[in-house]
Parts: sequence; C-alpha cells; structure tokens
Amino acid sequence: MIKLELDRKKHSLCVKEAPDVSSLANGFYGQMVRGVIYLSPEEALYVMDIRNGRCYDSVGNEFSFNEVASQFLRNKKLLARYLTYKDYRDKGLILRGMNEADGNYGRSLSVKYAGGDFTLASFSFQGLFFPNDLITLVDDERVGKELYERYWIGQFGTYKAAHRGRISKLDIYETIFLLKHGDLHLKNARLADIEKAASKRIKFFSDMYLVYEDWRKRGYVVKTGFKFGTHFRIYFPGASPVRSEDEWMHSKHVIHVFPRKHKLIISEWARAIRVAHSVKKTFILAIPGKKTPIEVNPKKPRLDFLLYHRKKGGIETPKDGTPRYLMYSLTEDEYIGGEGLAEALAECNKFGLEMMMAISDRESSVTYYVIKTIDLPGSEYEYYEIEWIQP
Amino acid sequence: MIKLELDRKKHSLCVKEAPDVSSLANGFYGQMVRGVIYLSPEEALYVMDIRNGRCYDSVGNEFSFNEVASQFLRNKKLLARYLTYKDYRDKGLILRGMNEADGNYGRSLSVKYAGGDFTLASFSFQGLFFPNDLITLVDDERVGKELYERYWIGQFGTYKAAHRGRISKLDIYETIFLLKHGDLHLKNARLADIEKAASKRIKFFSDMYLVYEDWRKRGYVVKTGFKFGTHFRIYFPGASPVRSEDEWMHSKHVIHVFPRKHKLIISEWARAIRVAHSVKKTFILAIPGKKTPIEVNPKKPRLDFLLYHRKKGGIETPKDGTPRYLMYSLTEDEYIGGEGLAEALAECNKFGLEMMMAISDRESSVTYYVIKTIDLPGSEYEYYEIEWIQP
Repeated sequence: MIKLELDRKKHSLCVKEAPDVSSLANGFYGQMVRGVIYLSPEEALYVMDIRNGRCYDSVGNEFSFNEVASQFLRNKKLLARYLTYKDYRDKGLILRGMNEADGNYGRSLSVKYAGGDFTLASFSFQGLFFPNDLITLVDDERVGKELYERYWIGQFGTYKAAHRGRISKLDIYETIFLLKHGDLHLKNARLADIEKAASKRIKFFSDMYLVYEDWRKRGYVVKTGFKFGTHFRIYFPGASPVRSEDEWMHSKHVIHVFPRKHKLIISEWARAIRVAHSVKKTFILAIPGKKTPIEVNPKKPRLDFLLYHRKKGGIETPKDGTPRYLMYSLTEDEYIGGEGLAEALAECNKFGLEMMMAISDRESSVTYYVIKTIDLPGSEYEYYEIEWIQP
Repeated sequence: MIKLELDRKKHSLCVKEAPDVSSLANGFYGQMVRGVIYLSPEEALYVMDIRNGRCYDSVGNEFSFNEVASQFLRNKKLLARYLTYKDYRDKGLILRGMNEADGNYGRSLSVKYAGGDFTLASFSFQGLFFPNDLITLVDDERVGKELYERYWIGQFGTYKAAHRGRISKLDIYETIFLLKHGDLHLKNARLADIEKAASKRIKFFSDMYLVYEDWRKRGYVVKTGFKFGTHFRIYFPGASPVRSEDEWMHSKHVIHVFPRKHKLIISEWARAIRVAHSVKKTFILAIPGKKTPIEVNPKKPRLDFLLYHRKKGGIETPKDGTPRYLMYSLTEDEYIGGEGLAEALAECNKFGLEMMMAISDRESSVTYYVIKTIDLPGSEYEYYEIEWIQP
C-alpha cells in the first residue's frame, strides 16, 4: 500500500513515508521536494488505480478514487490525460509532465520528399464538361491517350484496361488544372462555372484543389484515393500508368486534406488513417494555405507529456536517457483542428521531438500515431506523415 | 462498325441496318420496334465507345462521342449512369433500363437477426461524470466488475486486462442508458446536462443514442467501433467479455449511424464501409427514427438499371432468366441521404430485388455494394447489411 496525502485547499497530493517515497522515486513518479514526492493528478490517480495507493487528508479521512478525481474536475481533458498516461505506463514506459521539457532534444525528424517539376507540352484540345457528374470527357483519341500515357492525367479507355474504349475522362481536379495550366477548351462551361459547381458539391473544394495542384506542380501524379478512403493517392515523379510486363504500379502514399480552419472529430480523423493503414499506404495529412508564424508559449503547453521510449535492451529513463516524443492526449470524442494541430507540431519542433498522438477510445483502449513533418521542396503548405504505431 | 442514327429533334438514337440490328439484339441492347433498335443514351454511348459504333444523322453528318453525349447533358447523373452501365457490361453481364422492371421477382432477401431482451438487476450505485471527456467513472469495485462481467457495460480495470485496476469507465451511451434504465446516480450532473454536453460535442447524438439503446434493449452488447472506423460494434445476445481459455471474443458486426435527414458525400460513406471490410466485419447501416410510409412512383424510378447476374455455367439474360438486382448508379462526389436511401430500398422491395449500389470513382473505376434489409425483431428502425462485392 502506498499512502497519499491530499491537501484539499491546495489541490495537491503528496507521498511522505520513506518506503513509498523511495518506491515512487525509483519508478520516476512526481517531483521530489525535501524528501516529499508531489504527484500530478494523473500520477496520483495511477498510483491509486494500479499501485494500490490509498489517499487520506492530514487528519486521517480516507478519499476514494472519485473523491480525489473530483478535486480536479475543472482540469481540461483530465481523463484523456489520465487514460493515455495509464496506457503508456502500463506498457512499462516512463512519461513525465510537459513542464520538464527543456531545450532542444534534436530528435525531430522531417522526411524529405523528392522535388520535381511539371511541364505540359502545348497542345490544344476540346472537352465536354458534365456538371452533374463533375467530369470532363475528351473524345479526341490521340490527345486522351497522350494525356494519360505521358502525364497520367485522366483515365483513357477503361480503368486498368486503357486499350478498351477511346474516351478520356478527366476528373474535376484535372479539368481545372488543365484549364489553368494546359490548353483545354470546354465547349459548354467556363472555369468560373466549374469552380462554382465543384465548390457547391465538395466541401472545402478550394483547399482540395490547392493540394492537388501543389503536388502536381512538383511532378507527382495525383489520382483519387477513393479506394483507400482518402482524398488522393500519389505517385512519385516519373510514375507511369503504362504497365511494364503486365504489372500495375501501386501507389504507396495517400493524402487527406485537412483545412486549416476546419475541426474534425477524432473518430472521423482516425477512420481515414485506418483505411490507409489497412492497405499499407503511408498516410499524408495536408494542411493547405500559407503557414502562419506560431508562437509557442512554454507556460501554456498544448501537449501533454514528455515521453521516454525504448532503447536496446531496455527503456529510456529521465535518469540516463533523453525523451523521444511529446504526447498529445485525446479521446475519441474530442475535436482536432488543422490550426490546432499545426500549433501542437510547432511545439514539438521547438523541443526537437516527434509528436505521438494518443487517442483513448470510449473503452479506454489507446491508439498511437506518430506524426512527422514532410519536407516537400518548393511547397508552402504543411504536410505530415502519420503512422499508426504500437509503442 | 455499327451505324447509329441520331434524330436531333427527338433526341433519339437508333440502329437500322440488319447485321447491326441482329448483333445488338443478340447482345440485349435497346428496344426493338418494327425491325429498328432504339437505344438509350447509355447504350448508344457504350456502342460508340466500345463496340466501334459511329453515329450519323439522316443526311449523313457524323457526330462524335461528345456530340452525341451533349444531346443528353440535361439528364441527371448521365455519366454516373454511363460509367456504371459500362463497367457492368464490361464484366460480360447484362443490364436493362428500369422501365422493364415488372411485378415482384421474389428475390429480395432480408436477413433475420436474433431477438432478445435486457433486464438489469436493480442495484443502486454512484458515478462521477467528466463533462470534458464524456466519461463516467465508477469507483465501487464490486459494481464496476459486475456491470462489466455480467452485462459488458463499461470497461472495468484495463482494456483486455480487466484484472488490472479497479475503476470502471462508462462511455457516454452507457452513462445515459444506466441513468434511464438502471439505477446510476451521478454526484455532479443530471441527465439533462449530460445529454446537452453530448449533443454539443457529437453530431446527431440523439440519433446515435437511439441506435445504441435499440440494440441494447434487444440484448445485444454495443461498444465503440473506434478501432473499425465506425460508430459502434456489436456482439450478439449472450456475449461476454470474460475470456474463455484466454481467447478474446471478436465482434463480427459494426454499426454506422446514418440520420434520416442527413446527407453524406459518397466518398465518406464508402470510407466507413472500407474499414469494416478490411477487418472482415459485417457493416450495418442504421437509419434511426420511425419508418415513414414510402410511395413508390414507377414513372419516376430512383434506381437506374435492372441487373441480370450470373448463373451456374453462364449468365442470366432477359431471354431465359430473371433479374436479380436493381442498380443505384452514383459517383464518388455524389451525395446520398438516409431518406433517399430508404426510398430507393422501398423501390427494391416493391420489385422483390436486392439493391446493388455502383459507385464510379473519379477514375471511372466502379465499386459495388449489395444492400440487404435486416429484420431485427421488435425494432422500429431501419437497418441494412452492406457488403462490398465484385459482381
């Protein structure tokens, strides 16, 4: 049994008895001040829940788990923090409060993506736009075939059977891209009409188009991600739909567009990542629009915990190791916004640590995602690789 | 070469030359009237695209594919219909216009689910509600354990390790269910406060709760579907979280709630189904709220094509077989609403056919889903099994 003492006035919890102090200090719990260990709410609840802790006030009244927790009901995300703290601890790993983050740990890794460029041979052609379906058809066989084979723009013939049929289908992004950067002429619509029709139908269409154009302009092939539950899938510069030796080229990356001003419930957000994971694709989160300078306020951290991870043959600890991640603690029913995420990532950047997002579902099972910055040469937008991991 | 004749005034397309007529009749295209075959727009476009058709008017002017298509630009979903028509035809299967649907084919299958009931032993207990996290904690070990082991309500201890820890976590649906049907007392919140907090956070919360309650009341266990990208996962009556011989019980069904008045873009809708499929779960779509009587207007069908499918050793045809499905043709960027879907399903029911939803993505690749009605004894809501298939 570990004896905790609650000071209800100060909302503080501490451990004073020597064997308890030594046991908790060895396990890297709390802050030691003159032989007394002061625990954060998450630490105190963990000790009560899992380490057989019992809590009393200075005159010996006992407090139950919920009585202790109710002292901190005003803390935001108390359970999101507690449940993710607990899960990480339950894995035998050490985590500490954000207030201990200090300096730059130099561990932040950004992933460098190839840069490229894109030039379209100037040839002029006509298309027919279908406003109800947001598709343009090109019935000039030579043009449709060249657009498809040389640039992988449009779908000539039949999907995965380009020799079957003679019509090329341009999707809404390809249509606008070719109106802007190519020499496509539509018999029955102008650019403004099309953008209007698309914006009416597809939420955040202009954000979606910005992302499409950004990757296309750098030489990437960008196609629908429908089959993988995301907005786009991409192929690296040089990819071709013309099959070599009858093998289809598989994309390895999918893109989900997350508008800066938009907020999404975590469960929907996670759904998109799940599909990508299940089909073994790298999930890229795109936050289009210009980056805004973000001030990191160390007194009001957005992130929750400083995480020590594993090392060869054991675990890292505050005693002889350095932290590796910052934890962002959330629940399934919490919201996250593009802007909020960008701010949290700026905080990670300041400390030179990667972000580990920890999401506790309604059953208190925790899912982890590691988020890395993508360095796409020439782009002004923010892109992140999100990977589902088991720490 | 098949020669098509366009009558621009009547917007009609026909085939007159004897070898062409015989070839198309054998392939089950069009309507024969006095030796002439009249083609629907989808059929005409297919013949031009794939069967080497060329189109002329009565004085010999030739019309390109897009010139023919532009005659029908006002038709709703022209390309959605054409591309799904094409894909089904490309599989070597026959489909015909909805106008040929006649009578009741007796093929509509509903899936019967077990009925059950639910009674909670009356014991009174207390909990602490965390409004920020929408979770209730119960720190009475005996109660938390019994709720979990006997009813699989809440998560006692740790997820998949109930022996670890002594606290029970009730999610927001369990909290409300126990406030309404059990004897849970909260120290710090009333039912109305909780419903308000939940509605503010979770879209269509009352619809979600109705579905939760509906299945729970019939003896099913209903837990979060977070890991599978859906709202809930369910276990059939009698399921228990207490592991037998160290084996975890896996759910086989997930539920996605689709409010009657809500419209969802197909790509988001499909995303939820994809995850369920990838983890080999049966996907159940729930449309809560009372069914409203639906009038089917045979002159304005919501569905698109009458589908003949395969039979042993070959394919069904209009000549000697019966249709099996009705096709609902959509594109990735189209919307679908709970109400619209219910209406379309009523149409299927009238004809005694199952629904096959065909979704053409931006690349004209088509994905198929078969939709079956679920018969859940005692329930007033609509539930459907949706299965991803390759016809």
